[in-house]
Amino acid sequence: MSTIVLEQTQRTTLKRLPKRGSFDRERIHAILDEALICHVGFVVDGAPVVIPTIHWREGDLLYFHGSAASRMLRSLRNGVEACVTVTLLDGLVLARSAFHHSMNYRSVVVFGTAREVTGREEKLRALDALVEHVVRGRSAEVRGPNEAELRQTLVLALPIEEASAKIRTGGPVDDEEDYALPVWAGVVPCSLVFERPLTDDRVTAAVPDYVNAYQR
Amino acid sequence: MSTIVLEQTQRTTLKRLPKRGSFDRERIHAILDEALICHVGFVVDGAPVVIPTIHWREGDLLYFHGSAASRMLRSLRNGVEACVTVTLLDGLVLARSAFHHSMNYRSVVVFGTAREVTGREEKLRALDALVEHVVRGRSAEVRGPNEAELRQTLVLALPIEEASAKIRTGGPVDDEEDYALPVWAGVVPCSLVFERPLTDDRVTAAVPDYVNAYQR
Repeated sequence: MSTIVLEQTQRTTLKRLPKRGSFDRERIHAILDEALICHVGFVVDGAPVVIPTIHWREGDLLYFHGSAASRMLRSLRNGVEACVTVTLLDGLVLARSAFHHSMNYRSVVVFGTAREVTGREEKLRALDALVEHVVRGRSAEVRGPNEAELRQTLVLALPIEEASAKIRTGGPVDDEEDYALPVWAGVVPCSLVFERPLTDDRVTAAVPDYVNAYQR
Repeated sequence: MSTIVLEQTQRTTLKRLPKRGSFDRERIHAILDEALICHVGFVVDGAPVVIPTIHWREGDLLYFHGSAASRMLRSLRNGVEACVTVTLLDGLVLARSAFHHSMNYRSVVVFGTAREVTGREEKLRALDALVEHVVRGRSAEVRGPNEAELRQTLVLALPIEEASAKIRTGGPVDDEEDYALPVWAGVVPCSLVFERPLTDDRVTAAVPDYVNAYQR
């Protein structure tokens, strides 16, 4: 594991269970890269709004995108602060007491102000990187964005600077006196599993290897 | 599918792709009940914060909980507005053009102001319901919360009133001229799969059926 760490700020300092926290850049990147969904939080008229969307990463930039007509992206392109959170669930932790039940997970929180990607080259490269983030090897095969599609797509970039990871692993930790209870305890691991692809009608091409073997 | 619908408000009105939206109460409940993780958004010093946590539902109340020392819950117990979003990922939608790639998903957004559950009876019942939400059949077996644990646990309830679901299903929808491209297209379905349980050290009890057969 890399020892490169991000600078800790007041809001990325974990108040609860700081031993689960990490500012390790490689660990933060790995969680962002594995996840397919992030939750973007922003403030509209003083109230919080949290929207799920796809994100992707290049270097120290976290990208997300959407329709130029979207309320979220219109707010964020105007320099509104965002909080982007990604969570991967790894298991249920079943303890002998209700209180000590938990979950194994890996999460990342990124705070910052996004900027709109307006340069044509960066925008095209970022949209290629999005397809590669989801299915490596696919961006070279599909038809790339045309001018109308580029105009309709807003791409935002958020620097991964004020960020932290939080990770729980391992089994339940019970109070000493509860170990005598005749209750099963342990972990039920879980993961996002990809199943056999369903080929669309009107397809003549064979299923590519990158789809048949798809897992993250 | 029930025809009982929630009242639509300005912020639960989908600006984008309204055909994916639903205000059907049963549909909203089913998504909340299947999900193990929600993302709670709230505003701290004018900036958004999004934290992953576990939620559960009873009737028209969405519950979440945590340590009485947690920053999130301390903010929310004071009547701060929250936005709770839940997302279930169902598949990758791979189109012939980069632009029409998508994901199949089911998501719910709930807006509102949470109240702290202070009554002892409601709090105990809610914490039982949390265990049952995660693993049905387990709350009767485990040691319930003692007085110190009850004091350390803050439970919040958010009415499921201003809420909507957004759902995408089905295959890719390409531009007509792109169907001639020799590109594979289709869906790679995915789901959260639970694996064989890992029994903790010092357990003498057999693995219960509700754990061996665990899926959501």
